[in-house]
Amino acid sequence: MATDTSSKSPEIRRALPGHRLLIGKEAPLQLDCGATLAPAVLAYQTYGELNADKSNAILVFHALTGDQFAAEDHPVTGRPGWWEVMIGPGRPLDTRRYFIICINVPGGCMGSTGPKEINPETGKPWGLDFPVVTIGDMVRAQIRVLDHLGIDKIFCAIGGSMGGMQALEMASRHPERLHSVIAVATAGHHSAQNIAFHEIGRQAIMADPDWRGGRYLEENAVPRRGLAVARMTAHVTYLSEPALHRKFGRRLQDRRALSYGFDADFQVESYLRYQGASFVERFDANSYLYITRAMDYFDLAADHDGVLAKAFTHSPARFCIVSFTSDWLFPTSEAKRLVHALNAAAADVSFVEIESDKGHDAFLLNEPEFHATLHGFLNGTAERLGLPTGDLIPIDLGDRDPGKERIS
Amino acid sequence: MATDTSSKSPEIRRALPGHRLLIGKEAPLQLDCGATLAPAVLAYQTYGELNADKSNAILVFHALTGDQFAAEDHPVTGRPGWWEVMIGPGRPLDTRRYFIICINVPGGCMGSTGPKEINPETGKPWGLDFPVVTIGDMVRAQIRVLDHLGIDKIFCAIGGSMGGMQALEMASRHPERLHSVIAVATAGHHSAQNIAFHEIGRQAIMADPDWRGGRYLEENAVPRRGLAVARMTAHVTYLSEPALHRKFGRRLQDRRALSYGFDADFQVESYLRYQGASFVERFDANSYLYITRAMDYFDLAADHDGVLAKAFTHSPARFCIVSFTSDWLFPTSEAKRLVHALNAAAADVSFVEIESDKGHDAFLLNEPEFHATLHGFLNGTAERLGLPTGDLIPIDLGDRDPGKERIS
Repeated sequence: MATDTSSKSPEIRRALPGHRLLIGKEAPLQLDCGATLAPAVLAYQTYGELNADKSNAILVFHALTGDQFAAEDHPVTGRPGWWEVMIGPGRPLDTRRYFIICINVPGGCMGSTGPKEINPETGKPWGLDFPVVTIGDMVRAQIRVLDHLGIDKIFCAIGGSMGGMQALEMASRHPERLHSVIAVATAGHHSAQNIAFHEIGRQAIMADPDWRGGRYLEENAVPRRGLAVARMTAHVTYLSEPALHRKFGRRLQDRRALSYGFDADFQVESYLRYQGASFVERFDANSYLYITRAMDYFDLAADHDGVLAKAFTHSPARFCIVSFTSDWLFPTSEAKRLVHALNAAAADVSFVEIESDKGHDAFLLNEPEFHATLHGFLNGTAERLGLPTGDLIPIDLGDRDPGKERIS
Repeated sequence: MATDTSSKSPEIRRALPGHRLLIGKEAPLQLDCGATLAPAVLAYQTYGELNADKSNAILVFHALTGDQFAAEDHPVTGRPGWWEVMIGPGRPLDTRRYFIICINVPGGCMGSTGPKEINPETGKPWGLDFPVVTIGDMVRAQIRVLDHLGIDKIFCAIGGSMGGMQALEMASRHPERLHSVIAVATAGHHSAQNIAFHEIGRQAIMADPDWRGGRYLEENAVPRRGLAVARMTAHVTYLSEPALHRKFGRRLQDRRALSYGFDADFQVESYLRYQGASFVERFDANSYLYITRAMDYFDLAADHDGVLAKAFTHSPARFCIVSFTSDWLFPTSEAKRLVHALNAAAADVSFVEIESDKGHDAFLLNEPEFHATLHGFLNGTAERLGLPTGDLIPIDLGDRDPGKERIS
């Protein structure tokens, strides 16, 4: 029914390293839009070792522009994995004790089936013929990887931002498949303001003539400028005003005085331009459309008569909800709505608001209080389930600190 | 030295109604960038009557996308003036008692000299050859109109957002020209986050191939898509999350279910697209670049050893500083910095934070507490100066309520 092609098929592996699960036509992915997807590929990475009774698996869901390369050098950018601070020996997701799985979402662009991959019916890249996927679809697809690995029930589902949406979705629809859930910097639905910022990004991409109605890959074009503007817009929403002020303020970039022109006079402009330009090198514009759309569509309460608590009725899982004080994209008020709903559903929930001025991005950064929270929650859950516990090892990140970003 | 050409020169008047001041080569505008501008035109509107001793003038400074048509139907859009709720008989800026002047800023696109007007040296539109103007330049230019009208000292300088920057700039550099200042939803400098959002807008415009390196007017093109994305981005920053939630939430637009596509499923998407598309019909893309740049460059403290209080040393004016609780673009913290600086400079200052969930846009809307605040401040100042006072007349705005916006 499903085949691991990690070392078999160069056509499927492409240039990217790692595991592949091929989903065949005999059991296609059922999508919320009504379409089915098969054959389909899911690209994933693992860290640590699965124990004998397959009880130590943690499924890490990535966010909008993340991918499966969570804890290793990224094969395209060469930069450290996006959650290297979190995953590794002696880190909260301790690879000495846990088996970590991270899967590129369908609709993504790092090896899993998505709009840039070939549509087997046409032999051309899917483009906008790719079906719109939802957070629910992403989770159902990833459970196929668990099935393939023979894991009935994961120790923990964890993610930040869109990753947190997936963790909550899995807890709601597939409660029998997990023992615990950690949802960070996320919400039970995407707010009007968040939809608005995503729509700006999509409009920027679709306004770029090089988008070619979504067929840019066939026509050897890349909507670089539109995708860069989309990334710049999103990036500002990931940071807090205090963080921008602290990092850049009104400091000038490589000059002593204003230029009275439209160059990047200010460091913050130079930084944003760099963020936009470098993103284009690693991300597919159509994937950006699809994944933002999935987030916009996410609304756990909507399928439960508008009552969020009903999404978690009788959930046996332990929940840990984390927010950051300066995150205005997924503010603490949204986390509290989740906590209220979980309490109303009589779930086992702990909630921590982490003091940080780093905005939404804090979930990706070296935030000791946040890491200690996750470590404590995971250790406590491990103890209950009779799994080994362990201590954090202090990190000296050096040049691999994700907070050290180039600004020009 | 300066000529009012209101009824004289069809070349200068173009199709737009209203007054024009022509600044001749014998006394060019000196700009902060070092360049001079002449001939130059300033287009302005007035409401009410100037009294015999010319002591009842209020100079209203418009914001980024505003113009001189503050209190009458807009000649391009046909919509009510942007501050009609504020200006008129029985309104806070009472035209029965005050003479209101509103001038299109240089760099603008509603008749004043700006990048879309003809560069007399080339006979072609200025485009990016137009010099970068500052908030200081805008104020110096507008004082020329006061000179022309024979007004030595205005009763009040008032503005919101960029208009507030101009009011503060005038108080700082030209204190002898005003009795009072009302600065609403503004700050003493543009923050890193605000610069970032402006830079996104500029990049969106400049990414549009129809921008043609700024020469689109010569080439009969219009960078519609880029300008629309810029407007959409800015528009989201003008609203608060609660306002977006209240107005739109996750409600769908003209449909009962998700489309699983990239149409405007959500009302908030449809609204934003409309905002972008309609803006393009009335605003010039290069003007957008220049005016956002002027705001980014604004930093009152920078020219006073970084000490904001020094910008207001010995200012004899009465100040009224107003912020709105949900304005995250120009938050109350920025208003308080102004108030602290004014207090440190021993200025006469009152500060009011208005409770509103409408975000930055609140300064344009029918906010009774805000209007009552301005009315009280203006009446108090009038009393001190021996000018007549008056009462507010309750407004029934009906269809002219600026809060009633089309959403599709």
